[in-house]
Amino acid sequence: MSVRNTARDESHFRNRLAEIQVTVLAGGVGGAKLADGIAQHVRPENLSIVVNTGDDFDHLGLRICPDLDTVMYLLAGVANSETGWGRSGESWRAMGEVKRLGGPDWFALGDLDLGTHLTRTHLLADGLSLTGVSHHLCDVFGIGADLLPMSDRPAPTVIVTDEGQLAFQTWFVERQWQPAVKEILFPQDVRTTTQVTTALSKTHILVIAPSNPFVSIDPILNVYPIREMVTDLPAMVVAVSPIIAGKAVKGPAAKMMQEMGMPVTSSAIASYYDGLIDLFVSDVRDEDFPDQPDLLTMKTDTLMVDQGDRSRLAREILTFCMELIEK
Amino acid sequence: MSVRNTARDESHFRNRLAEIQVTVLAGGVGGAKLADGIAQHVRPENLSIVVNTGDDFDHLGLRICPDLDTVMYLLAGVANSETGWGRSGESWRAMGEVKRLGGPDWFALGDLDLGTHLTRTHLLADGLSLTGVSHHLCDVFGIGADLLPMSDRPAPTVIVTDEGQLAFQTWFVERQWQPAVKEILFPQDVRTTTQVTTALSKTHILVIAPSNPFVSIDPILNVYPIREMVTDLPAMVVAVSPIIAGKAVKGPAAKMMQEMGMPVTSSAIASYYDGLIDLFVSDVRDEDFPDQPDLLTMKTDTLMVDQGDRSRLAREILTFCMELIEK
Repeated sequence: MSVRNTARDESHFRNRLAEIQVTVLAGGVGGAKLADGIAQHVRPENLSIVVNTGDDFDHLGLRICPDLDTVMYLLAGVANSETGWGRSGESWRAMGEVKRLGGPDWFALGDLDLGTHLTRTHLLADGLSLTGVSHHLCDVFGIGADLLPMSDRPAPTVIVTDEGQLAFQTWFVERQWQPAVKEILFPQDVRTTTQVTTALSKTHILVIAPSNPFVSIDPILNVYPIREMVTDLPAMVVAVSPIIAGKAVKGPAAKMMQEMGMPVTSSAIASYYDGLIDLFVSDVRDEDFPDQPDLLTMKTDTLMVDQGDRSRLAREILTFCMELIEK
Repeated sequence: MSVRNTARDESHFRNRLAEIQVTVLAGGVGGAKLADGIAQHVRPENLSIVVNTGDDFDHLGLRICPDLDTVMYLLAGVANSETGWGRSGESWRAMGEVKRLGGPDWFALGDLDLGTHLTRTHLLADGLSLTGVSHHLCDVFGIGADLLPMSDRPAPTVIVTDEGQLAFQTWFVERQWQPAVKEILFPQDVRTTTQVTTALSKTHILVIAPSNPFVSIDPILNVYPIREMVTDLPAMVVAVSPIIAGKAVKGPAAKMMQEMGMPVTSSAIASYYDGLIDLFVSDVRDEDFPDQPDLLTMKTDTLMVDQGDRSRLAREILTFCMELIEK
């Protein structure tokens, strides 16, 4: 099925969307981009973004939450659009000194970005939950949507590689995701928050962003009872493929699929989400269709280069979903 | 007794000093200045500076060692000469962001300075001792003298005020030493390091810098067995008064003396160190002499405004001590 991208009356679109609750499951850059697109249409009070915290780690004494920050900075309009992570207008004086003093400089922390980590670490030490910290920071950054960590408890993703077990950021950033992945380990005893279960239970549309399914989305689904809730949701569940023209836009998704013996196709992603999703959105550059008879599909241009792209893609997905909901 | 500040042959002075081991007990700014003056004369391998770490604290996730850093930055020639603490050419981008994000900004941490705290916190978490961290940082900063924390264990000074107990930095920086001091508490079970006892046992001259006796020097002396060793040392022990013309050059020393019912005089400082010191150096602006018959005294200009002052004062003290040692 291809999207009917007809010209619609803007106020009609807004009115239809007014009562619609949307939840996004998001990792880093890809998730942030689609979440930002959706935030351009959905009322802030109706939008929740559940973010992967499996990448979080303690570094140089600070609690670093890379995916939360990537989403927060993009939604706040202060993201570095060239790197996809970090702040625009960033400086590197503290990090330059860390390097000169022989400290680890493989994880780049700009001076402005350090302000976030220092404040977060302080607030956590002060007894605030990660959800509370996220709420506070988003408030200051002027973000209306609810940016929700998948859990308030640490839930570190561990990568089993052909060189042994590596902490996520060691594999992802320090080793630049080069060691081949044999297995991905998630903690088995982590629960989500009331804020996440509340958002999920009232959502009409759940969007699985075009983030890495294995190290961005799976960590979220693994947190109890998110996978169970998503499976049973009456909501429309839609996943957007992170594969475009047989490649990952950014990051290790394609390389990991090869290493896991999966074909590097959108259809393989759809199969991976089998049982969870109602609608699968893939790129027009990919001609394959998922082999799942009950799965709705939509093909469009899913490449998000600028804010206009993000807005357009989000609007197409929301329109498609609303038509199905209204049926 | 007044110092005979005769012109001496420089190489003769250096030769006499060549074999002399010197140890300084130092707090923050005053201690750093005299230590820097002494470092201009004494061979680096013959100079140990034992620094107060009772001010150290955890803040924004980082281990902060204010006195160690003040001494290190001054000896490295990168200190901010206007404030007395922190780095020259400093910037404040991270801290500005902490403030904007609602974090605590009462303890100012510049971007370059943060590089030190981030690296230290990382190295401590990595298992290095504070002495090891100090050694490493001094190496990079090109400091030849041995900068020794008074202990590798935390030994936080607690200030009992008329508003209750306050952590040292809360009282000193956040409350700007305004709450009146009733009592100062030191931990009773902290030992010093092998590096400090080795330095003390071989030292010929021990200099108690013109730091605050109550919150900079006492914390050092309280660490077992430093007070016991200083009392029994065969070395020449000399203290320099932090009081000039009846006032403290910087900080709360004079205010604390009043609150403790002590006269704000150099002599009162000499009495405070009674039993520990052989020689007391006070300023020419103060006309009083200690009422301790066996105590040697020296009056000179003890105000250290620039590096020339520091060098001159240090040379006068070293010359005086060497003459006594050579007798």
